[in-house]
Amino acid sequence: MSDSVGVVKTKFVTFKDDFFFESGRVISQVTVAYETYGTLNEKKDNAILVCHALTGSAHAAGFNREDEQKPGWWDSMIGPGKAFDTNKYFVICSNFLGSCFGTTGPSSIDPHSKKRYALKFPVVTVRDMVKLQKKLVDHLGIEVLHSVAGGSMGGMQALEWGVTFPYATKSIIPIAASAAITPMAISFNAIAKFAIMKDPNWRGGDYYDDVMPTDGLAIARMAGHITYMSDESFHGKFGRRYSAYEGIYDFQGFFEVENYLRYNGYKFTEFYDANTYLYVLKAMDIFDLSYGRNSLKDALRLVTAQSLFITFTSDFLFPPYQTEEIVNLMKEIGQNPQWENIQSDYGHDAFLLEFEVQTGIVRDFLEKVK
Amino acid sequence: MSDSVGVVKTKFVTFKDDFFFESGRVISQVTVAYETYGTLNEKKDNAILVCHALTGSAHAAGFNREDEQKPGWWDSMIGPGKAFDTNKYFVICSNFLGSCFGTTGPSSIDPHSKKRYALKFPVVTVRDMVKLQKKLVDHLGIEVLHSVAGGSMGGMQALEWGVTFPYATKSIIPIAASAAITPMAISFNAIAKFAIMKDPNWRGGDYYDDVMPTDGLAIARMAGHITYMSDESFHGKFGRRYSAYEGIYDFQGFFEVENYLRYNGYKFTEFYDANTYLYVLKAMDIFDLSYGRNSLKDALRLVTAQSLFITFTSDFLFPPYQTEEIVNLMKEIGQNPQWENIQSDYGHDAFLLEFEVQTGIVRDFLEKVK
Repeated sequence: MSDSVGVVKTKFVTFKDDFFFESGRVISQVTVAYETYGTLNEKKDNAILVCHALTGSAHAAGFNREDEQKPGWWDSMIGPGKAFDTNKYFVICSNFLGSCFGTTGPSSIDPHSKKRYALKFPVVTVRDMVKLQKKLVDHLGIEVLHSVAGGSMGGMQALEWGVTFPYATKSIIPIAASAAITPMAISFNAIAKFAIMKDPNWRGGDYYDDVMPTDGLAIARMAGHITYMSDESFHGKFGRRYSAYEGIYDFQGFFEVENYLRYNGYKFTEFYDANTYLYVLKAMDIFDLSYGRNSLKDALRLVTAQSLFITFTSDFLFPPYQTEEIVNLMKEIGQNPQWENIQSDYGHDAFLLEFEVQTGIVRDFLEKVK
Repeated sequence: MSDSVGVVKTKFVTFKDDFFFESGRVISQVTVAYETYGTLNEKKDNAILVCHALTGSAHAAGFNREDEQKPGWWDSMIGPGKAFDTNKYFVICSNFLGSCFGTTGPSSIDPHSKKRYALKFPVVTVRDMVKLQKKLVDHLGIEVLHSVAGGSMGGMQALEWGVTFPYATKSIIPIAASAAITPMAISFNAIAKFAIMKDPNWRGGDYYDDVMPTDGLAIARMAGHITYMSDESFHGKFGRRYSAYEGIYDFQGFFEVENYLRYNGYKFTEFYDANTYLYVLKAMDIFDLSYGRNSLKDALRLVTAQSLFITFTSDFLFPPYQTEEIVNLMKEIGQNPQWENIQSDYGHDAFLLEFEVQTGIVRDFLEKVK
């Protein structure tokens, strides 16, 4: 595959100094898992940081093994000739703080107690994630990024980069994101949180030496899954098709959409940690770009990077009106954001699926960034 | 209160003959709980059947006790001078088949085994509910109803009445309903179902002599609650307000919307039975007006009643386009349905809340019914 970055190894770096959380908590020896694609040029000015979403990882493109079945989560956007063209750019993706794919999080071993952190891990915020990414970028010897991009919670990180480190990135590309999620989105996350915490196997988060709260985590994922789709995509993908081997009058007979949600819910429990899911949901819930900055407008005054916002018409988890609000405020204060509201039936998942239309938009934007 | 029907007693009738379910199953001695408001005239032609929604009961108006705090679920619409004017009409509301408020359902005692039915109860369909309502109407000596009205699953029943018993009602008023729910609505119900069935206390439905699957049922209700509101009503009612006594960096700190969902979720478990919830969700999922009738268009050919459809713009559980489809098909086959799509931010709950605008529409419609 000439447009693939090929086989890529996940790298790790551990920072020996203390890491201070937004909450005031401190931990030491934070490890970051990350991958890079393409080559950093001599001037070190061609680096782009890509930020992953809720349950993503550092593995954004290519394959970790020759025989890996599925490429990284944004492989359609990262590679030679793609939107994030690895012939031109040095693309970095790191697993965010609090996750369970190599970067320190609730399922990591606390170096002091030699036991897993579980609920002793500090509450993580998007700002914490961004601060750790900055440490990684420093570690790689990069002073100024060409861009920071990401979808969903990755877009929140891109936005936060623009406000927290305006001097360290020339541009930001928040996709399918917002400055704070809606109360409706919080409600979906609440279903997920209660499902996990009410699973008797969760046991206050101390389940690592025993059975996992699999049912709770599966139900949590199912609730999330609904928000990634749209009324249109549910119709298109499933309609009201019923299982071929069950009757509609069978008490436990299921529609195909139910089987799909269940299958993917339980599949998720094979690779994701329940406490981690609670922590990342919390980070998503409490993210508020304006927090401690007087107002959203004042927060946005700090942005000096060029900005490209992308939204999708059928995304009800991060409705386009939220980005419209940001864009309008930025214009009011004399900034010049670019906003593309893409017509799509894929709902929130569109940022992963609508790569063709995004490619043109992102490529043109990155060309113009100075 | 001059516009209240006052204190009303719930009545009961038990039918001695066998009841045949759509599934082919049979049970005997079905009891129906019902209430009536107003007076049946001598010609017995002023009766209106009101059908309740998913978790409703026969108690649609007035008070069951002098000291009851909250009136029946549609008290704003039923009473002297109200939309369903009890000075003119004899209003009947019965608890539907499979529910847990007096009518026979999964939590009832099986007269043969003397034990609760639990999962031995047959799967109930909206057609089964409607057939039992017809028995009640016959029992009351009414040959032709003036109207059958209801919101949500109550609207599905009204629609089914129009198709199953065209000779027995002069009009139908399906509100915030559809001919079959969307796959997205099925998905929300799936979350609810899995939450209950994965609660270890559910024990295959045999929990009546032990602890109730309270957590599962509470989570199920929370999932339902989301679908009754709208993005707008979530913003209006809660915004992103955070609990006054918890910090945003507290792992178990909650937004007000989370506390609200939790409170109402657990409150629900005090009066609703978990198996019953599974059965009524199933009935909602599998309802399809076209089932066994070749097509939706052919099903609608059977309707001879005058029809008034009401929808609400922000209702994403029963989106207005579903009613539009019905109305368009009815017009194609020469019928003359009236459809009012009411601008409202209340989401699906609007059928319970937007009583002022509904009152005018319903009153005028009922006047014209011949």
